Amino acid sequence: MTIAPDWIALDWGTTHLRAWFMNRRGEIIAKRESGDGMSGLTKDGFERALLRLIRDVLPDTHPVDVICCGMAGARQGWIEVPYLSVPCCPPGLDRAIRAPTGHPHLSVHILPGVSQATPPDVMRGEETQIAGVLAADPGFDGVICLPGTHCKWAEISGGRIVSFRTFMTGEVFGLLAEQSILRHSVGATDAHPAAFAEAVSEGMSHPAEFTARLFRLRASSLLGAQDPATARARLSGLLIGMELAAARRFWLGRQVVIVGETRLAERYAQALATLGVATAQLDPDKVTPAGLARARMGGSGTA
Amino acid sequence: MTIAPDWIALDWGTTHLRAWFMNRRGEIIAKRESGDGMSGLTKDGFERALLRLIRDVLPDTHPVDVICCGMAGARQGWIEVPYLSVPCCPPGLDRAIRAPTGHPHLSVHILPGVSQATPPDVMRGEETQIAGVLAADPGFDGVICLPGTHCKWAEISGGRIVSFRTFMTGEVFGLLAEQSILRHSVGATDAHPAAFAEAVSEGMSHPAEFTARLFRLRASSLLGAQDPATARARLSGLLIGMELAAARRFWLGRQVVIVGETRLAERYAQALATLGVATAQLDPDKVTPAGLARARMGGSGTA
Repeated sequence: MTIAPDWIALDWGTTHLRAWFMNRRGEIIAKRESGDGMSGLTKDGFERALLRLIRDVLPDTHPVDVICCGMAGARQGWIEVPYLSVPCCPPGLDRAIRAPTGHPHLSVHILPGVSQATPPDVMRGEETQIAGVLAADPGFDGVICLPGTHCKWAEISGGRIVSFRTFMTGEVFGLLAEQSILRHSVGATDAHPAAFAEAVSEGMSHPAEFTARLFRLRASSLLGAQDPATARARLSGLLIGMELAAARRFWLGRQVVIVGETRLAERYAQALATLGVATAQLDPDKVTPAGLARARMGGSGTA
Repeated sequence: MTIAPDWIALDWGTTHLRAWFMNRRGEIIAKRESGDGMSGLTKDGFERALLRLIRDVLPDTHPVDVICCGMAGARQGWIEVPYLSVPCCPPGLDRAIRAPTGHPHLSVHILPGVSQATPPDVMRGEETQIAGVLAADPGFDGVICLPGTHCKWAEISGGRIVSFRTFMTGEVFGLLAEQSILRHSVGATDAHPAAFAEAVSEGMSHPAEFTARLFRLRASSLLGAQDPATARARLSGLLIGMELAAARRFWLGRQVVIVGETRLAERYAQALATLGVATAQLDPDKVTPAGLARARMGGSGTA
């Protein structure tokens, strides 16, 4: 069966490219992805990378709209799309910029990211996931946590992103687990909820001891007192605990919507549960195309 | 002129091998080093690596003693030398283990490292630098800070190492500056004392915000508000500030002896000066061979 999408939703991240083929009702017909992330491409490589993924579904007769969020709009991306500043609604198609294309039936619109002056912060892609949350619940007022390489906490009110804060938690975890001396002590799996919860508590209450507690993971395994799965759970817990201590103003006395890959979202939900914070988890694989559909249908609203 | 050492002092680290040729009075005649660190060698490669560095000075008639500290005594090293436990004096030759050698005129003695049960911690090499401080000042009582990849703070009393704590500060700095997204924002030089001091203060007072302040370095450079030299100074300051907050019990109301590479030792001295802590800096290139000379002459003392 041939896929004939009405339009294509695109999330172009640093390391991945994800495409959802959408029908007229904004429903997903199919999904494809590739490892052609922004970081591996030069400016003139974006169209080729996109065509590798979707060329066979482009019609011969008319152009298809591609609505794209993420790093494709960064300075090192396909074409730079200037940030919107908070407070602002998640950007709509009226704020997108057409990417330069050679293919006659490709019409690519890249959405802007969102920036914040104080404290300085930026996002590219998460604003569209926030739009996806608003698409499902237009009256949503509250806090969204978007864990990942760079975890974002965003405060949403009156349909607008009011403020947000980014934590490099995921990237720091990856560097420590895979590139540091801890790679000899940290295992590939971390199914150890008690050690995780304990480390969350330590990370929250003694954040200054972070680099000492890192080395303690190494020393404990050298002295034979700790297995690799426990070490991984503790590393994850220390980092998430430290983040939760600093993100307190976002979650204190609130319910938190978590949008992120299941395993990682579970960790945040588990850590927040120990603090008495209720959470709801949404699947980014649904939220992102829903946000792109919302951007396509509406403007940015008033800021 | 031929070098004819009475004995050879050796510091075998993870990434470097350093040899000092010593005369009968414990003075340095010459120094050599290579990149044959422990991490690049298999068990049977240590003797070859050492001979590459010193073979030409070995006499034909009698064995020369080589006194070695550091990672050569680790489990993955030349031969494992079990740790001494605190409280203990820096280990002397009576605690060393002979490494297996094939060369007839090579007699290699590897000193043990020191471990601590609570909190779990280990050192290999720094105990000998501590011995070097004690060699210069046998009555020394106080705190020694040994910055580096893994910075150690040690409390010395009555000639013994009473307790110590390791911080992965240097390794985390290297990973973030060179491997993370911050590599695009952080320059190669950091001559920016005011930004460094400010970041030390932030790291001390808001340690939980560590991963958020990391991303702020990235966002600030994307939003054009920060040059690469400032970013490097701030990254260094955040990490050292966080460490100083957790190491407070070591430096509060004390004078601190710093043993470390000049530039890094300067940073610690500068940060401690803002806290009203006086420091004295000693050169590891003198302290390490002095510690090996002390280990050679004396036993480990009583613990």
